[in-house]
Amino acid sequence: MSASDFNYEYFNVTFPQEYVAHVEINRPAKLNAFIEAMWLNLSKLITQLSTSPSVRAIVLTGAGPRAFTAGLDVQAASQSGILADSSSSELDPARHAFHNIQHIGEFQACISTLEKCPKPVIAVLHGISYGLAIDLSLACDIRLCAADAQFAVKEVDIGLAADIGTLTRLPKSVGSASWAKDVALTARVFGAEEALREGFVSGPVYPSKDAAVAAGLEKARLIATKSPVAVQGTKELLNYSRDHTTEEGLRYTAVWNSAMLQTNDIKDALMSGLKKTKPKFAKL
Amino acid sequence: MSASDFNYEYFNVTFPQEYVAHVEINRPAKLNAFIEAMWLNLSKLITQLSTSPSVRAIVLTGAGPRAFTAGLDVQAASQSGILADSSSSELDPARHAFHNIQHIGEFQACISTLEKCPKPVIAVLHGISYGLAIDLSLACDIRLCAADAQFAVKEVDIGLAADIGTLTRLPKSVGSASWAKDVALTARVFGAEEALREGFVSGPVYPSKDAAVAAGLEKARLIATKSPVAVQGTKELLNYSRDHTTEEGLRYTAVWNSAMLQTNDIKDALMSGLKKTKPKFAKL
Amino acid sequence: MSASDFNYEYFNVTFPQEYVAHVEINRPAKLNAFIEAMWLNLSKLITQLSTSPSVRAIVLTGAGPRAFTAGLDVQAASQSGILADSSSSELDPARHAFHNIQHIGEFQACISTLEKCPKPVIAVLHGISYGLAIDLSLACDIRLCAADAQFAVKEVDIGLAADIGTLTRLPKSVGSASWAKDVALTARVFGAEEALREGFVSGPVYPSKDAAVAAGLEKARLIATKSPVAVQGTKELLNYSRDHTTEEGLRYTAVWNSAMLQTNDIKDALMSGLKKTKPKFAKL
Amino acid sequence: MSASDFNYEYFNVTFPQEYVAHVEINRPAKLNAFIEAMWLNLSKLITQLSTSPSVRAIVLTGAGPRAFTAGLDVQAASQSGILADSSSSELDPARHAFHNIQHIGEFQACISTLEKCPKPVIAVLHGISYGLAIDLSLACDIRLCAADAQFAVKEVDIGLAADIGTLTRLPKSVGSASWAKDVALTARVFGAEEALREGFVSGPVYPSKDAAVAAGLEKARLIATKSPVAVQGTKELLNYSRDHTTEEGLRYTAVWNSAMLQTNDIKDALMSGLKKTKPKFAKL
Amino acid sequence: MSASDFNYEYFNVTFPQEYVAHVEINRPAKLNAFIEAMWLNLSKLITQLSTSPSVRAIVLTGAGPRAFTAGLDVQAASQSGILADSSSSELDPARHAFHNIQHIGEFQACISTLEKCPKPVIAVLHGISYGLAIDLSLACDIRLCAADAQFAVKEVDIGLAADIGTLTRLPKSVGSASWAKDVALTARVFGAEEALREGFVSGPVYPSKDAAVAAGLEKARLIATKSPVAVQGTKELLNYSRDHTTEEGLRYTAVWNSAMLQTNDIKDALMSGLKKTKPKFAKL
Amino acid sequence: MSASDFNYEYFNVTFPQEYVAHVEINRPAKLNAFIEAMWLNLSKLITQLSTSPSVRAIVLTGAGPRAFTAGLDVQAASQSGILADSSSSELDPARHAFHNIQHIGEFQACISTLEKCPKPVIAVLHGISYGLAIDLSLACDIRLCAADAQFAVKEVDIGLAADIGTLTRLPKSVGSASWAKDVALTARVFGAEEALREGFVSGPVYPSKDAAVAAGLEKARLIATKSPVAVQGTKELLNYSRDHTTEEGLRYTAVWNSAMLQTNDIKDALMSGLKKTKPKFAKL
Repeated sequence: MSASDFNYEYFNVTFPQEYVAHVEINRPAKLNAFIEAMWLNLSKLITQLSTSPSVRAIVLTGAGPRAFTAGLDVQAASQSGILADSSSSELDPARHAFHNIQHIGEFQACISTLEKCPKPVIAVLHGISYGLAIDLSLACDIRLCAADAQFAVKEVDIGLAADIGTLTRLPKSVGSASWAKDVALTARVFGAEEALREGFVSGPVYPSKDAAVAAGLEKARLIATKSPVAVQGTKELLNYSRDHTTEEGLRYTAVWNSAMLQTNDIKDALMSGLKKTKPKFAKL
Repeated sequence: MSASDFNYEYFNVTFPQEYVAHVEINRPAKLNAFIEAMWLNLSKLITQLSTSPSVRAIVLTGAGPRAFTAGLDVQAASQSGILADSSSSELDPARHAFHNIQHIGEFQACISTLEKCPKPVIAVLHGISYGLAIDLSLACDIRLCAADAQFAVKEVDIGLAADIGTLTRLPKSVGSASWAKDVALTARVFGAEEALREGFVSGPVYPSKDAAVAAGLEKARLIATKSPVAVQGTKELLNYSRDHTTEEGLRYTAVWNSAMLQTNDIKDALMSGLKKTKPKFAKL
Repeated sequence: MSASDFNYEYFNVTFPQEYVAHVEINRPAKLNAFIEAMWLNLSKLITQLSTSPSVRAIVLTGAGPRAFTAGLDVQAASQSGILADSSSSELDPARHAFHNIQHIGEFQACISTLEKCPKPVIAVLHGISYGLAIDLSLACDIRLCAADAQFAVKEVDIGLAADIGTLTRLPKSVGSASWAKDVALTARVFGAEEALREGFVSGPVYPSKDAAVAAGLEKARLIATKSPVAVQGTKELLNYSRDHTTEEGLRYTAVWNSAMLQTNDIKDALMSGLKKTKPKFAKL
Repeated sequence: MSASDFNYEYFNVTFPQEYVAHVEINRPAKLNAFIEAMWLNLSKLITQLSTSPSVRAIVLTGAGPRAFTAGLDVQAASQSGILADSSSSELDPARHAFHNIQHIGEFQACISTLEKCPKPVIAVLHGISYGLAIDLSLACDIRLCAADAQFAVKEVDIGLAADIGTLTRLPKSVGSASWAKDVALTARVFGAEEALREGFVSGPVYPSKDAAVAAGLEKARLIATKSPVAVQGTKELLNYSRDHTTEEGLRYTAVWNSAMLQTNDIKDALMSGLKKTKPKFAKL
Repeated sequence: MSASDFNYEYFNVTFPQEYVAHVEINRPAKLNAFIEAMWLNLSKLITQLSTSPSVRAIVLTGAGPRAFTAGLDVQAASQSGILADSSSSELDPARHAFHNIQHIGEFQACISTLEKCPKPVIAVLHGISYGLAIDLSLACDIRLCAADAQFAVKEVDIGLAADIGTLTRLPKSVGSASWAKDVALTARVFGAEEALREGFVSGPVYPSKDAAVAAGLEKARLIATKSPVAVQGTKELLNYSRDHTTEEGLRYTAVWNSAMLQTNDIKDALMSGLKKTKPKFAKL
Repeated sequence: MSASDFNYEYFNVTFPQEYVAHVEINRPAKLNAFIEAMWLNLSKLITQLSTSPSVRAIVLTGAGPRAFTAGLDVQAASQSGILADSSSSELDPARHAFHNIQHIGEFQACISTLEKCPKPVIAVLHGISYGLAIDLSLACDIRLCAADAQFAVKEVDIGLAADIGTLTRLPKSVGSASWAKDVALTARVFGAEEALREGFVSGPVYPSKDAAVAAGLEKARLIATKSPVAVQGTKELLNYSRDHTTEEGLRYTAVWNSAMLQTNDIKDALMSGLKKTKPKFAKL
């Protein structure tokens, strides 16, 4: 798998290190705002990376100095897309609703590709990170940010409740229910330090976008050196845990590991530990 | 809807700004301690506010300088109410238990009115905030506090496990399970800074009760300027998220928004955004 | 119940105060690393303490200055235990998997004894606290730590996804999903201050192991002075809350307290409150 | 409590035997079709019966020879109620949707009063039993029917998916998922024998309405002779079981009975069993 | 949409009536046994039908007189597919397990396309209906059968637990848990009358394959004359009900219908009812 | 494993065929009524059989011509056990409740041993089958019965709601909710034909106890000839299905079979199928 397998408008895909993919949202002239083609393409390329044995960790960033992404390209969406005025439509509201369910479902599924990807995905946020930036990064596993990051759950300001994942995942991703409601109901902007304090991102806050991206790539490299059986199992079980009781989580874990403990990676890892060598794990 | 529609002993209801209701617990001579009539009345008045199209956000505070509320009026409760000694009752323990289930259920339902209210409710806590203060504020959406606030999950000190909501909602409202158990098992008092650090309240800590109440009202005003379709949908979906899996949350969101995206508010909000004007949204 | 009832290799059990049990993991020469006999014994002794009316709170610590526990004794496990190389086994992978499910389930059940114990269990962590240290302490109710504590979710480094509880309980015990995934996917070491900031432990961070153990014992003593009906109900309802919706939590609470409000402890606690005396509660 | 406490248009309430209430839907000239006042009143009167210690079992029937109920009074509903044409309304579809959620929720809650009633409710169906007849009887505990009963899940024929309970409760009340979908998707009429074979009603099929009502009253009388602690606990636990896992059902049962086993009724029942006398149980 | 849009090896797709699609499994020489291309193609064609406004109901049958389907083509599967002997593979059992999860998940998703299709799907079974025949038909909404149908949950006889849906859906589709376990654990053949008595199929049992297919098409035609808003909502809500509590089902229903009650179909249906005409509903 | 390994008062354990265990409740003089030692012993012996590789299916019957079991030995229970009069106890009702929870939980766990046993358990019922007979047989996988069987959910007649499993498992085991409530609320006796019609037992009804036991043993023998990997997986997945959504069931199935498809049994079963020989499967 090489960069040339990935030819998407608005996305750069590179492989800076063995087993590490770097995906860059690339529409900087528009602050990386998303049009429909972009979320469809993001889903496609993450699916490609998901199934490649040459990839063990993914880093998601935004091109340009100003924004991870400003969110939905509202102008485009209001002209022909999901937010277009429908009052002159011939569809009755029920039929319109069926179309909306279909459309929202497809949009959500694109974003959820990041969560369903069996490999860890690290989002590195900087600059303007509004609306869809929150949805996207919450579907990733680890969130890092630069000091200049400015976040907002912006949707109420355009007359709608966020429906691509933020309202579902945010309360499960941070500790303070009061804070989650505060930022979602007021749409106020919050900065990197607040994001760290509330647990939306993992620390430390990096001084610049470059430093943050470098840290994200380094973390991905570190993860990619480990057993992919162990790493992918860990992501699976952590995601499962969020949505199940402790009793169910323990049972699922036992069943999952009933096969996974039969990997050669354990023997290899233990041996390397004794010999102080770096283990090499077979592709998955 | 005007203040004169609300004539409740122990509660002041005012409308300091358009679409904003201010509910004040008003029994300061007793540190705003609750007797049964009070939780029944609180539930009634919140229900009134819930269904009024003239209300878009609610602020809940305690009258007087000393307490949000000291909690249950234990003296009253032990004489004729829920904590009254029943050993001389003619009921056998099973029949007594049936009555307790009924009584606790009604009490819980009164407090849950705050959570079920479709509009955001902001609790502003100051001074003594014990027992029922925790139950009440956890059923609100956003918790703010003054620097003099003193909190305690006080129930174990009177021989019972808190049963009006704290033990159910606290672990879902803060990040640290260890801390939640610590304060609930020891009944120790904790202050404003600790409450902020643990995510029980949203920051900042305000220097005085007056400053905190002013901030609460200002936050309510801000929320009330936004589309009520968007705001009430946001509260609904955040509450739903807490108690469901991510998959279910996404589906429910899509179905919810299948109708809600058909609001005129989106068009109005987008237009106002372009024209830099303030949108006015129709009543809901 | 006295210390002489507890004669387990690798564990010291003492009763430093009325109603308080102190359990010390005692294999300091091996950094308190666990072999199979140890988790079986821990489960047995906690079960004994669970059913003794003379015990109302438990403190779990590690002997010696260097470690709470370094985790699984990997060398022992790889020779004859759960991580032993099975590639030469005559069992086919399915039969092997059945054995693994059984084995993991039993191991998990031992650790869960701490969670199912009706009395609060306080873990005091110091020094090296790797792998199983995280599993164990997450099954306790309150986690305290000394400044020298070093934590790591170590399992990916030996080629496996943690399966004795960490991946299930960690995301439910701290606020930041990003942080939980970070430490579980990278296996990096983190210190006491980070553990406190992320809510893994309750504060404050104690300057030394001795100070931390003293604080744990003092907290246990405080809890043990309270009504055991109230304390054990509080633990039960907090644990229930974690895994159920708010609606279900409230109902279960009402049913639970339908009997528990009929305790004499409430009368005794209220009376003591009025008389400023210390209540004495009957054994449970 | 006597019949004179119940003065509702369209409902007759009588007490044919000690502890047994008989509620008759009484609008025979319109085939007992429901207008809004009727479901509001039904809910009110069931609530009254729910809390009266003089009532231990309830029988619900329809007046007149022709129908249990023909369902919603469609003509009335289409003029001013829930099915009224809204295309000329000034509300946008989102605001309209908010009103619908509110309205449907209230309607559902009225019907659910039968399910939440702690005492067993026996529905006896005869003649035309369409639409709301299915919703209503599914919220009861036991369904009996006369040979002339004609059932239909009628809603698709008026352009809507049944939303007052049938689609939620029917699949949980009968065994065959294929049959449940068949009758709900085709709106076809089915008779008493088919209803019995599929488990929608309990047998036997009674030859006439009179015989069926007599059997319902006799079953109610039998239930009313038993311990109300045992009977109401049995209803509670069966309802709980439907919506929970086996593990949860067992736990809830243990907690429920922790108080209920302390009833004097057990001693009285055992004694009566030995003495071959009829026990008399105290009111609940 | 016409038959020419559907060009799949092993499937015939026809449109015998307006809004009705007939899908025929067409590999009669092999008793309609499935190879991988077939389940992939079935999923694709059902997806096409799902999104076509010209289709409102689907009938699924098997070509030829002998079998609906004999199930998985075991010979093909054991040569290169999911059941192929893997003991000589270079993959360790953990890596093999990852591949299996992926493969089983894709296979399951193909079958689930029938369940996720928003339109009703009627399976008509005849002759040999083994293994995958059960999985497939359980993902449909209504099951009809001919008198010559012979069913078996065949998987244990080839050494595996059925994993494409039968073990998950069968217990939720029939009433008797004892019977479901009996047929799944013994793999014994059962006939049409037993299938009807146990609720696996809806009655009546049709005398021949031709009669059964005709009845299936007639039922589809009937459903297709009704409002598609009502019909698709009914399928959605029945499916939702199976997997949720009553409380959740009612809420979801209210939210779903908040938009759907705004359809013109209700007005049209009511009007047609009064005028005794056949309503024509707009496409969805 | 041989009969001599099982030396329990009140239970006969024999091995009439390879891999088949026959457990007989043996207290015929008392109609096989249960005292505490019996449920403790039943649990122990089922646990022994659970872990023995020589056992693949279990049959549970009652000794003597008159009863499977008459249920709890009420006289014994009222003297010193769970139903003993506690009004003279020194424990307050809360402390009493704690003991009840503990006691009921242990009793339930004994019965659940049958459900948790990884091997299929077939209950063969005859004669008097009251109370605990229902609890016990519902925890088994398959229920068969003789024509003389008389069933009753007897508990309300002794003043309590059944708490050892019937109220939890019965509604999940039969199709008709109305029938389940009928028999549980009235405690009426029902016979073999009714039990079959309602799906409580699998057919056919056998003419005598001897015929029923022979059929149970033959079914066990048949199951025991099949791959134990397949059979035990089938039981596991059917039990899991009952308590989970379809989506979760499918996922769990895929993870479970990720290891189990790697069994040699599949190859052996396929080969035997081709060669028309009887496969022999390795022990599990």
